[in-house]
Amino acid sequence: MSTSIAALGEQALIDRLRRRIGPPPVHVELGIGDDAAVLAAEPGTVSVVTTDAIVEGVHFRRDWTAPDAIGHKALAVNLSDLAAMGAAPRASLLSLALPVDFPLADFDALVDGFATLAAASGAPLVGGNLTRSPGPVVVDVTAIGAARRRRVLRRSTARAGQELYVTGTIGAAAAGLALLASGHVRDAMNPAALAAVARYERPEPRCRLGWTVGRSGGATAAMDLSDGLAAAARSLADASGIGVVLDADTLPIDEAANAWAVGAGQDPVLFALAGGEDYELAFAVARKQRSRFRAAVSRGRPVPVTLVGRFVADRGAWLSRNGTLSPLPAGFSHFGVRPLEAENCGKGL
Amino acid sequence: MSTSIAALGEQALIDRLRRRIGPPPVHVELGIGDDAAVLAAEPGTVSVVTTDAIVEGVHFRRDWTAPDAIGHKALAVNLSDLAAMGAAPRASLLSLALPVDFPLADFDALVDGFATLAAASGAPLVGGNLTRSPGPVVVDVTAIGAARRRRVLRRSTARAGQELYVTGTIGAAAAGLALLASGHVRDAMNPAALAAVARYERPEPRCRLGWTVGRSGGATAAMDLSDGLAAAARSLADASGIGVVLDADTLPIDEAANAWAVGAGQDPVLFALAGGEDYELAFAVARKQRSRFRAAVSRGRPVPVTLVGRFVADRGAWLSRNGTLSPLPAGFSHFGVRPLEAENCGKGL
Repeated sequence: MSTSIAALGEQALIDRLRRRIGPPPVHVELGIGDDAAVLAAEPGTVSVVTTDAIVEGVHFRRDWTAPDAIGHKALAVNLSDLAAMGAAPRASLLSLALPVDFPLADFDALVDGFATLAAASGAPLVGGNLTRSPGPVVVDVTAIGAARRRRVLRRSTARAGQELYVTGTIGAAAAGLALLASGHVRDAMNPAALAAVARYERPEPRCRLGWTVGRSGGATAAMDLSDGLAAAARSLADASGIGVVLDADTLPIDEAANAWAVGAGQDPVLFALAGGEDYELAFAVARKQRSRFRAAVSRGRPVPVTLVGRFVADRGAWLSRNGTLSPLPAGFSHFGVRPLEAENCGKGL
Repeated sequence: MSTSIAALGEQALIDRLRRRIGPPPVHVELGIGDDAAVLAAEPGTVSVVTTDAIVEGVHFRRDWTAPDAIGHKALAVNLSDLAAMGAAPRASLLSLALPVDFPLADFDALVDGFATLAAASGAPLVGGNLTRSPGPVVVDVTAIGAARRRRVLRRSTARAGQELYVTGTIGAAAAGLALLASGHVRDAMNPAALAAVARYERPEPRCRLGWTVGRSGGATAAMDLSDGLAAAARSLADASGIGVVLDADTLPIDEAANAWAVGAGQDPVLFALAGGEDYELAFAVARKQRSRFRAAVSRGRPVPVTLVGRFVADRGAWLSRNGTLSPLPAGFSHFGVRPLEAENCGKGL
């Protein structure tokens, strides 16, 4: 029988967590251990703050996903929001609600998954909360970033005539989730399928790219793909009071997403457009920003970026395919009646 | 049958919440509706950040506590942490995990309870997250404050010879919880008992006092009483590498706490010392700070403050009673085996 967290007092668990995350960097004036954390000011910047929770049975299942991946993902989805604002990560807070029989080894692994990404991304864990849960595991994370005031990438500042770019590939996380939900075992998956599962479980937020593009002035608006590209494109257009046309022929559809959709008798384009949790970034780029955008994208470790559409004056969201325009499929609603496992869930305010 | 939140889409719920909280103040450059919120910098200050969750069945029961009180309390416990740092509230984030059958009227009331305190305390809701929960209601809040760098009130900076002050009265919330847990109905309670229940359900964080004392330089260390005075005094002493002696005869024990303890055959002093969730503040005050401390305390709406002990060089925590020193009772451990309802739960990192 494995040891559960109930074997330790709460203070012992916190001490254990502290030892695992190590000392914070210098801009953290006060980390874990007081009533609150204290962060030094970064002159000339504004604070960018976001929070996002993942819930057992809604966003993950413990029998599918390793605990370190849960810790990783809980932070990653928040870092993706900072990246979408063009902000550099500065700190993170972790609030855990855990059943008393939660295995201690899983606690360690969850903390390690979180801490590894936190350290790598410049968002050290500076505080949080630990409580029992009579129900599912809830991992709630707040991430704090910094950006120059005039370089913040909002949703509402896209303009008609601008181009829409997306990073990486789309549909991968949805394919990974579909593979897990339909009972596929990892041992029998091909490399593309395994990569899709990894994208679902352990998304790599585009921290550096978002921040680099923001700082360079290479885009006018941005958003991450937590609810899929269709939803992101529509949100950018709606918030900006304009419309958007996506080009079906240029979409960077993930290989496993394409294979899954074909196998399931679905349209790969619609599957990839509607698939959430990719945590790629969508940027609105003006013609005169194009060179700065391209330069920012190729700085450091280059990230593939694809031109997938353009913003138009007429409000609405369309898909261009073989020369025909059709309305974009709507996104998901998380309080609706769809089965939990087939849904991407949770929405930022 | 009442309408549940499932009747609305998630976006409709967020829009509804937005309408209820109104427009943010000017230092919120970007509030709800983007990937993250943006807060203007306040020159010369550091950011103070804290997070705390309350969980149905652990911190509250829906059949005992009105939903607006749940919203209020979730924010209050975080504002109390900011107050204990000497920080002025600046913004708040609200992450809600709700069962799909959660009544829409309760959603409105919870948001209103949160928003009313947020507006009154200068911590406007700037962002958050909404997700379904297959289990209990989880309300996770992050609060962000600002303080001048040298005026932050840590735990670790109390010194031997300093006095320990506490605001308000102690034991009230524990008495309120005990009254509810033992099945007392409100209609049959006397005013002191009702007040104790209100302290448990709707704590009033000492925001202004904490900030005023911090800014005035009237204390060297502070902590809030989320886990009770005994635990706070011990934590201040431990973090500062010193000891503390509490004076049993001077403790400002709440009237209902005293009555409850006597009626239950318990020692009122120990009951009040161990009772958590009062969210009063404990301050370590040096002799030369005393006049500044007193001036800060009496500024604005005066708050009763009581000298309850002193810090000593020898490590440890004692209770002085009738001229005899005895060890302070230990605090609670939230992952232990005590029944949920009789326990104060959750611990900040």
